[in-house]
Amino acid sequence: MSQGFLDDAEAGALDTPTVVVDLDRMDARIASMARLMRGRGIALRPHAKTHKSVQVARRQIDAGAVGLTVATIGEAEVFADAGFSDLFIAYPVLASGPKAARLRHLAGSCSLSVGADSAAGLEALAAAMRGASPPLRILIEVDSGGGRTGVRPDQAGSLARRATDLGLEVAGAFTHEGHGYKGTDLRAAAGADAADGLAVAAASLRAEGIEPTVLSAGSTPTAALSAHGAVTEERPGTYVFGDRLQAALAGEPPEDAALMVATTVVSAGAGGGFVIDAGAKILAQDVAPFIAGHGAVVGYPDAVIQRLNDHHGVVDLPAGAARPAVGTVVWVVPNHVCPVINLVDTFVVAQGGRAVDTWTVDARGRNG
Amino acid sequence: MSQGFLDDAEAGALDTPTVVVDLDRMDARIASMARLMRGRGIALRPHAKTHKSVQVARRQIDAGAVGLTVATIGEAEVFADAGFSDLFIAYPVLASGPKAARLRHLAGSCSLSVGADSAAGLEALAAAMRGASPPLRILIEVDSGGGRTGVRPDQAGSLARRATDLGLEVAGAFTHEGHGYKGTDLRAAAGADAADGLAVAAASLRAEGIEPTVLSAGSTPTAALSAHGAVTEERPGTYVFGDRLQAALAGEPPEDAALMVATTVVSAGAGGGFVIDAGAKILAQDVAPFIAGHGAVVGYPDAVIQRLNDHHGVVDLPAGAARPAVGTVVWVVPNHVCPVINLVDTFVVAQGGRAVDTWTVDARGRNG
Repeated sequence: MSQGFLDDAEAGALDTPTVVVDLDRMDARIASMARLMRGRGIALRPHAKTHKSVQVARRQIDAGAVGLTVATIGEAEVFADAGFSDLFIAYPVLASGPKAARLRHLAGSCSLSVGADSAAGLEALAAAMRGASPPLRILIEVDSGGGRTGVRPDQAGSLARRATDLGLEVAGAFTHEGHGYKGTDLRAAAGADAADGLAVAAASLRAEGIEPTVLSAGSTPTAALSAHGAVTEERPGTYVFGDRLQAALAGEPPEDAALMVATTVVSAGAGGGFVIDAGAKILAQDVAPFIAGHGAVVGYPDAVIQRLNDHHGVVDLPAGAARPAVGTVVWVVPNHVCPVINLVDTFVVAQGGRAVDTWTVDARGRNG
Repeated sequence: MSQGFLDDAEAGALDTPTVVVDLDRMDARIASMARLMRGRGIALRPHAKTHKSVQVARRQIDAGAVGLTVATIGEAEVFADAGFSDLFIAYPVLASGPKAARLRHLAGSCSLSVGADSAAGLEALAAAMRGASPPLRILIEVDSGGGRTGVRPDQAGSLARRATDLGLEVAGAFTHEGHGYKGTDLRAAAGADAADGLAVAAASLRAEGIEPTVLSAGSTPTAALSAHGAVTEERPGTYVFGDRLQAALAGEPPEDAALMVATTVVSAGAGGGFVIDAGAKILAQDVAPFIAGHGAVVGYPDAVIQRLNDHHGVVDLPAGAARPAVGTVVWVVPNHVCPVINLVDTFVVAQGGRAVDTWTVDARGRNG
């Protein structure tokens, strides 16, 4: 058995660099998160941008997810076409240009909710949906400390009022406590920030006579922590595979991830380490201050992927450390898995050390 | 006319985020580099990984390029299938697993050269090509200071001897003076490093009785600088579009690039600037110490894209600076164009302010 998901003979038959997902590990992660949310009485709506794959999404729904979260109209179209009936675009959707007609068509083909955080955004949504049935459901985005998108929680009500004045239906509010990724206080991001922010947003909506039915938070590291009664739904994404960043936040070994990139050592390198055939065009350039380099090299704990060019991963090794020979297949756990899956059209599915299938990244590249 | 490549009506009809290439600007860049190399008597073999597009490559050949450079067997397959007859894989190709048969088939369908920098790599190439005709041409990769792949220039001869002992044909040597991208002394990278390194490699080959016919250097910032007689061929890639990093190295405004990403302002943002719908899944995370943020926002010189999430670009603005309203289309020159083109399946071609065509990124995702 190699260090990765395939035994040596199967690993040698791979056309590297390639993304490999271990099916049993992924299924265990899907079941674990579903069980956790069920136990807490919180609806699970996984973010599909992490996998962009119809086959993975089906397993999440089969395990009890109420629907899917997506980031773009394009992702929603792919999953609606595949028969998924309940979708939330957790993004301030701007229905301008060709997106107006696309959104209207999409809303007619599934039960659709979208985010909004501005009057201009709401006006475009209302114009796109005028006279359409069923109505589009709006979730007002509130900022819970991430400093990205969303209005202040106490302003949710006035924006919701604007939405209803425009003939739109407001279902509630959502937030993304992404500042939890910074490795600071996850419990604060989940509790005092996300849950409290949603509680303030709910009060603000009620003050305008709008009773929220959905108060949605979401990120993998905080999904287990939002103990507040204000949260009705969680939208974790990365949990389905895990990655090096999430492992570091959770204090777990990165090798427990369900997705790795199989690479081949192509050169002994000019710098004393070695060079792999996985560069930025498959591992992506995401870094974080609390992890060294561009991915974890499984079985080489002292190795640091110090640089990625498009097709080269330049790995540093301390003097005297064991090093893989040119031609060896080595396995890398990427820092951030979401951009990795978006760089490949398919991935290999492994089970029990064997490659059992190849699945499609159906929504790859659906950025808009 | 908007700040980008399309007039306002055409820009408003875009489905953002989308990559847009200005055809006249690109053609001017292609012609300029071809003229420069012709004037210096150096063969031009553009690196196709920057565009991965058959239609762009045809224009480079029509302007006088002798053939194409690619990074992977997969890219070579795409261009060979499209009829390009002279290809060089500027990479230490490791012909293991399924790549052995792919390489053999590829070498039968075009005039093919590949890089090598190890005995193990040469042995795999020889095994893959045993008895095949015509022979594969090898270029020994030498390290000219980049510290990535390649042997020391004075060791080129002994590795070349190993190649000929294995029945392979050695055509010469190549290097990539990628350390020129660091913004230090480009002239040193091109001259004292690349050209001198290739001169040493040539002497080392001749000492083994191998007369090099190809001594190939290559990077956009150094292409004009390698004034040394040792260089017979240049392999610039990024010049075809330009990007913010190349503009900074050349001291030119980034707005002169031939490729931009058209984005829409989706939120006024929670941090005082604004948020665009172009995140890391279209702009990529490449940064450089001598440029601020993740791209140049055309027409907003004080704007800094301080953070990219998958689908959000978070833009900082100084207090009081003019800011685009939610719904506005804004144009971004990416930091590094190569990973950007690899994130999209197609791009819009603009000419005279109008969208005139959509071209395919034929070799997108061909990482292996």
